[in-house]
Parts: sequence; C-alpha cells; structure tokens
Amino acid sequence: MAKPLRLGLAGLGTVGVGVIRILENHPDLLAARAGRPLAISAVSARSKSKDRGVDLSGFAWEDDPVALAKRADVDVYVELMGGEDGPAKASVEAAIAAGKHVVTANKAMLAVHGQDMAMQAEAAEVALRFEAAVAGGIPVIKALTEGLAGNQVTRVMGVMNGTCNYILTRMENDGVSYDEVFADAQALGYLEADPNLDVGGIDAGHKLALLASIAFGTKVNFAGVELEGIQRISITDIEQAADMGFRIKLLGVAQLTGRGLEQRMQPCLVPANSALGQLENATNMVVLEGDAVGQIVMRGAGAGEGPTASAVLGDVMDIARGFRVSTFGQPASTLSEIQAAQASAPAAFYLRLTLKDAPGVLHKITGALADAGVSIDRMRQYSHRNTAAPVLMVTHKTTRAELDYALNGIKATGVTLEDPVAIRIEDV
Amino acid sequence: MAKPLRLGLAGLGTVGVGVIRILENHPDLLAARAGRPLAISAVSARSKSKDRGVDLSGFAWEDDPVALAKRADVDVYVELMGGEDGPAKASVEAAIAAGKHVVTANKAMLAVHGQDMAMQAEAAEVALRFEAAVAGGIPVIKALTEGLAGNQVTRVMGVMNGTCNYILTRMENDGVSYDEVFADAQALGYLEADPNLDVGGIDAGHKLALLASIAFGTKVNFAGVELEGIQRISITDIEQAADMGFRIKLLGVAQLTGRGLEQRMQPCLVPANSALGQLENATNMVVLEGDAVGQIVMRGAGAGEGPTASAVLGDVMDIARGFRVSTFGQPASTLSEIQAAQASAPAAFYLRLTLKDAPGVLHKITGALADAGVSIDRMRQYSHRNTAAPVLMVTHKTTRAELDYALNGIKATGVTLEDPVAIRIEDV
Repeated sequence: MAKPLRLGLAGLGTVGVGVIRILENHPDLLAARAGRPLAISAVSARSKSKDRGVDLSGFAWEDDPVALAKRADVDVYVELMGGEDGPAKASVEAAIAAGKHVVTANKAMLAVHGQDMAMQAEAAEVALRFEAAVAGGIPVIKALTEGLAGNQVTRVMGVMNGTCNYILTRMENDGVSYDEVFADAQALGYLEADPNLDVGGIDAGHKLALLASIAFGTKVNFAGVELEGIQRISITDIEQAADMGFRIKLLGVAQLTGRGLEQRMQPCLVPANSALGQLENATNMVVLEGDAVGQIVMRGAGAGEGPTASAVLGDVMDIARGFRVSTFGQPASTLSEIQAAQASAPAAFYLRLTLKDAPGVLHKITGALADAGVSIDRMRQYSHRNTAAPVLMVTHKTTRAELDYALNGIKATGVTLEDPVAIRIEDV
Repeated sequence: MAKPLRLGLAGLGTVGVGVIRILENHPDLLAARAGRPLAISAVSARSKSKDRGVDLSGFAWEDDPVALAKRADVDVYVELMGGEDGPAKASVEAAIAAGKHVVTANKAMLAVHGQDMAMQAEAAEVALRFEAAVAGGIPVIKALTEGLAGNQVTRVMGVMNGTCNYILTRMENDGVSYDEVFADAQALGYLEADPNLDVGGIDAGHKLALLASIAFGTKVNFAGVELEGIQRISITDIEQAADMGFRIKLLGVAQLTGRGLEQRMQPCLVPANSALGQLENATNMVVLEGDAVGQIVMRGAGAGEGPTASAVLGDVMDIARGFRVSTFGQPASTLSEIQAAQASAPAAFYLRLTLKDAPGVLHKITGALADAGVSIDRMRQYSHRNTAAPVLMVTHKTTRAELDYALNGIKATGVTLEDPVAIRIEDV
C-alpha cells in the first residue's frame, strides 16, 4: 500500500469533528478507494481543552493554524475555521506557499479572495478545492466542474441557505411571523453569529458567486451579486403566493446575458409544484442547466456535521487519488473579467403595497404603474380595520428597470406607508 | 498548449453524433477546461454513406471497430455501439490491450463483462469509464465514486429507464391502457429493438448492478438482480395507487443486508408527493444514501443525444485532465464477491386479484393470507358485470417470503382467474 496522505485539520467545530469521525469509522474503506491510507497528523483550534466527543490524543496540536499549515508532516491542509480574512486566509496562503494542497469549506474567503488564491495554488502546483463551501453534502462543484465539463452552462440556480429555507418553510407551515421564526432559529443555533449573513442572503450569495465562476469561466465576482434578504417577507406574502400556486424561496440565479453576468440572490416566487418549490426546511437544491445536458437537479442536506464532512472527504479523496483540476475548472489566469448585469429578462412581479386609506390613493398608484409601462395582471385590496390598506398585485411581465421606475413613481406619490415589497416570479 | 487528446469514436447513432457536435461547437471551451484540445482522429459505424447531419470528412474511417480501437492516432476509444458481446466487447478489449483509455455507454456489456474488463484496464493502466451508461446526463457515477467517496453507502435507488417511466406516466395522465401506450412508444422509436430490455426491467437492472458495485465495493452481479417488468401494470393499479396517494414507478433499490446484497428492479408504489413519485415522463432520478451525507437526490434526462453525449464528454474530459480512478471506485481485484439476497425488510404490498365470482371465494383467499401470517390493511371489491371479480388489497408490512407463501396459497385455492399482481410499497 502506498504511503498515507497526511492531513492537517484547522477548526474543530461541527465539520472538523465530522471529518475526524469519518476517518475513524472507515479507515479501510477510504484506503481501498484511495489506494492509500488517510491520516491526520495535526490539528488546530481555539481551545485545546474543550471536549468535542472525539479523541485528539493521536494528533499533534498547534495553537497557530499557520504553523499547522506549514508542518512537514502535512500533505493537505484542511481549513474549517471560516472567516473571510484573518487566520483562515493567512493559513491557507501559508499552506499553498509551503506546497501543500488545500481543502476548505470557507465560502466567504473564496468569494472574496478566490481568484488570488487560485492563482497562488496554480503557481505552486497544488490543489485548492472547496466542495464543502457550496450546498453542504451535495457534490455540486464536482458535477459542474467535471461532470458537465462538456457543456456550455446556460444557467445555474439554487436554494443554498438552509436557515432561510427553514424560516420560510416554517412561516408557511405553521403560519407564524418572520420575527417569531427568526427568534426560534436563533435560539436553536441555526443562525450565524451575524444573522445578516444568513437572512440577508450574503452566505448564499457567496456560494452563487463561486458557482458562477465555474459555470461561465469568469472571475469570482461576489460584489456583482444583486443581494436581497428575506427580512421583509411577511406571512401575507407567503399566503398570497400559496394562494396563487407559488412558494417563496431565497433563490440564487446566475446566467450570462448579452449585457454581462447576471447574478441574483433574492426572494422569488417559484411554482409550488416545481422541484424548487417543494424544497422543505434546511434542505438545499442546485439546478444546473447546460446546452447539451439540459437540466440537472441536485438535492441534499446543505449543512451539518455529516454532509459537510462528506464534501470535505470528497475533495481529500480526489487529492489522494492524484486528481488535479483547476480551482474554478480552468486555470485562474484564463478566467475572464466580466461586467455585472442586472436581470434583463422580463418577469412578472408580486407587489405588496401598504397604502394610506384615503380617496384617490389607488388612482395614484395605478397611474405610477401606467407611467412606467407596467401593466397589472391581478390585484386585491383587503378590507382592513386600521388606516393602512394592504394592496397586493401581480404585474404582467416587465423588466426590472421598468419595475424600479414604477416603484420610484409609487413612492413619489406620497400615499405609501411602507416601502413596497416586490418579489420576482421566476421561471424555473 | 499541450498536445491534443485524440479520440476514436465507434458508433454514430444519436449519442455518437452528439459527441461530434459538442466537439465542433465548443473546441475552445473544452481546451481551456482540459488544458489541451480534444480531437477526433477516426470513426467507425455500420454505414459510411448514411447522412447523419454532421461532417465526417475530417476523420479517418474504419469499417472495423477493432481496427479503430488499435489505431496509433487514438488515445481514447469511445464505444457507443452497444450490445453485450460482439464488436463492442471485442473492440473494447482490443483498445485496452493496445493501451488506450476507454469510454463507453454500454451498460449491457459492463453489467456482464465489467469485472473482467476492469481487471484488464487496471492491468494495462488505462481508464475504463462509463458515466453515460447510467441515467444519461446525470453525473451519478462521478457523484457516487468520487463525491461520496467518504461515505459508507447505505442504499442506492433509482428510476433509470425513461421509456418505462414515460409509459407509466402516460397511462396515469391520459388514462390509457398499457398496451395502447406501449404501441405508441414503439411507433415513436422509444423502445429498444427487443422491447423486453426496457419494459422487462433488464436495461434498468444493468444500471442498478453497476451502481451497486461502486456503492458497496462488490463485483458487478447482474444475475443477482431481482427483475420484474411493468408489463402487468394495469390502469386499475395506477388508479388505485393514486387513490391511496401513491404512484407506480419501475424502481431499482440496492442495499447491503446481513444476508447479502439486495438488488431489486421492480414496479413499486412510492408516495405521490415524494421526489421519486413526482418524476414525470422520460426523466431519470437517482437517490444515493450514505452514512455521512444522508440522502442525495439527482434528477435529469436519462437519454437523448445531448444528455448522453454530455456524460461521455465528462469521462473524456477527466481523462484529458489526467484523472484516473478505478472503474468501480476501487481496484477490481479488491471488489468482494457477495451473495445475492432477497429483500428481507418487511414492506406493505398492494395486491390485485382476479377471482371467480362464486360463494366462498373471498373466504378461501383470506384463509390463504391468514395461513401465511399476512394481515390485511385495506380491501376493496368492485361491482362487476362479468364473472371475474377484481379484488384489491393492501397488506400490513410483511416479508417477501411470507408474501410469496401467501401468493402460492392463493393460487392453490383454485379460485383465481389470473396470477395475482403484487406490488411492493417502498419507503423512500
């Protein structure tokens, strides 16, 4: 049997512990598949003494992940600490410079520094892989980079933040408000320390930017992702959507258009009977569309110990088997710089307006829509007890530019009590 | 740029033409991703003169695929002719012996000769890959072999024959009989020359046997697949299943049990609201379950020019990128020989009986069930005009052995006019 592939593991949270457990549970299986054993040489984490339910006594300990990354007995540096900069970035760069392969689950770091890091890895002729950074256990980076390598990718879509999908699903199933479910999710530890990373769509936006780079051969451009969170989605929106046969999902969409690369991560209405519409709770789904393959849908757990550790192991096993593929599917130096573009394809939009209850109000609103060239497919106003009149509309297909013009016009009427809520109805 | 990877393409049907089209449409994209160009050196097919809508003038022609496989200007032999033996087998073995990598879509050949061929390929240190042989464009071989390489796989399931799913879906949606839809499918060219390959479950059984080998590290054992086709499914069965919230699918299930390897390809009732239940028309779905990753569901086109050619290109691109993985995920010599086992986990069964219309008949049937220890969850007898009384039952959970005992007992009563139809209700 060939000599072992030696891992240095930085970060012993849920995922790090999951990786240790897989190596402990299946040493022979992994060795048979890889053609060589896998072994952990050394680990690093914030606290050495914390009880994590796994035995660390067989591994060397490093307080400093940078020192871990450079150890002579480490072939692959596995970064599971997270964080866009700081120790994660420093240690990954140190590992690459020291000629180590790197496997990371760090979407925030790669969404911002991925291009640089891929260049460094390619110059050093080491692998930099990140299956665990996108959609947890779903092997979507592999499917896109390798399985669909014969395709010109036409569109990538995904529900890739389990916490947001959990919140939206529970609002619908239990009929409770966003604030209430948000508080529950926080109590259950489902949310990041900064919850805006989840509910603001940032985490999912990082993932979309990484997928788009591979899909379209473009440099990762997280700044170009049009981001909108789920904070303003109300139970009314969810009920109205359901009534029309839709569900609301925090959906990412990336596609190349004549104007540039469109990347959106925003709440959308999708048909309730579509695969995306039926996605419940914390499950993730990615939809890949290519000119030859048509549509491929992949569903699985988007987070958690086992699924994320499974993705880390997928990358580690590739390295053990000697597979080298460029981080983003082609050499980073050949990735193109492309302009970010707003969605140009017309879509229908769901609008929720909160209007003053006074004569002429609806006349002003419909006037603003008419001025923008936006026509109304359906509209409802509910009877109400207070002075705020809720009005719900679905537009005919319109461009985002026309819609924005209309929304500005609506605000300028002075009859709205809150900013309008506008949710795109996506063709999936 | 590195020197081109040169392909020899045998078989210019739908898929072969699809491969040529991808190479024609995206030479730069493929070269950028692979780090080297792909080029077809030579082709072979039954007829040289047939118009296939693609220009073959740039490729050398070989009448004999064995000669093609051995050509000095071929690095990868792509076998798209099909057939368990004959020219496909002869040419693949010739290619391996000549030190060529092989990519094939031939599930029948691999289900029978896969173990031998993998041994030959590994001895010759060449790749033998077959993504296109299972579930068309869905990169499921890659997901299972590589993406989930850190998992002990617990179960693999799939709807992998598009024609059968098309027939079952149309029966349900249009309320037409099996015979009628079968005739349509034949007229549309959806069926193999020997339709039993499709409707008898053989083609899907080949695919299941290949997946099971990778999943469980066992030698391909197609002979061990319990096979049952869809020929006896009636519109009554479909309607009754729907009435209870189920759909009937030709479902493959493979899992390791204490008694051995269970591989079944048979019609099953699955919940109508499950991902498998919602699969329409010719689409394929594969469900992979691992101890770390949980459940991964993959959906896509199971056949057709683009999707199948996409899968072939996935394998070719891996070879171009220098990736070598054993055909079945670990060296063929290390795959274990394992006993085939009948399904041991108890399941509920749907039964359709056609009984003589006479006093005491139902008493005899219920007696046979009671003798076998099979208890009835629900039962219906419909009013009828002729002398054949249709009786439908759903049993409580029972083992296959008990059920078979009951079915034998039922036949022995002498009151049945047709063999009973028994369909397993699968927990998916």
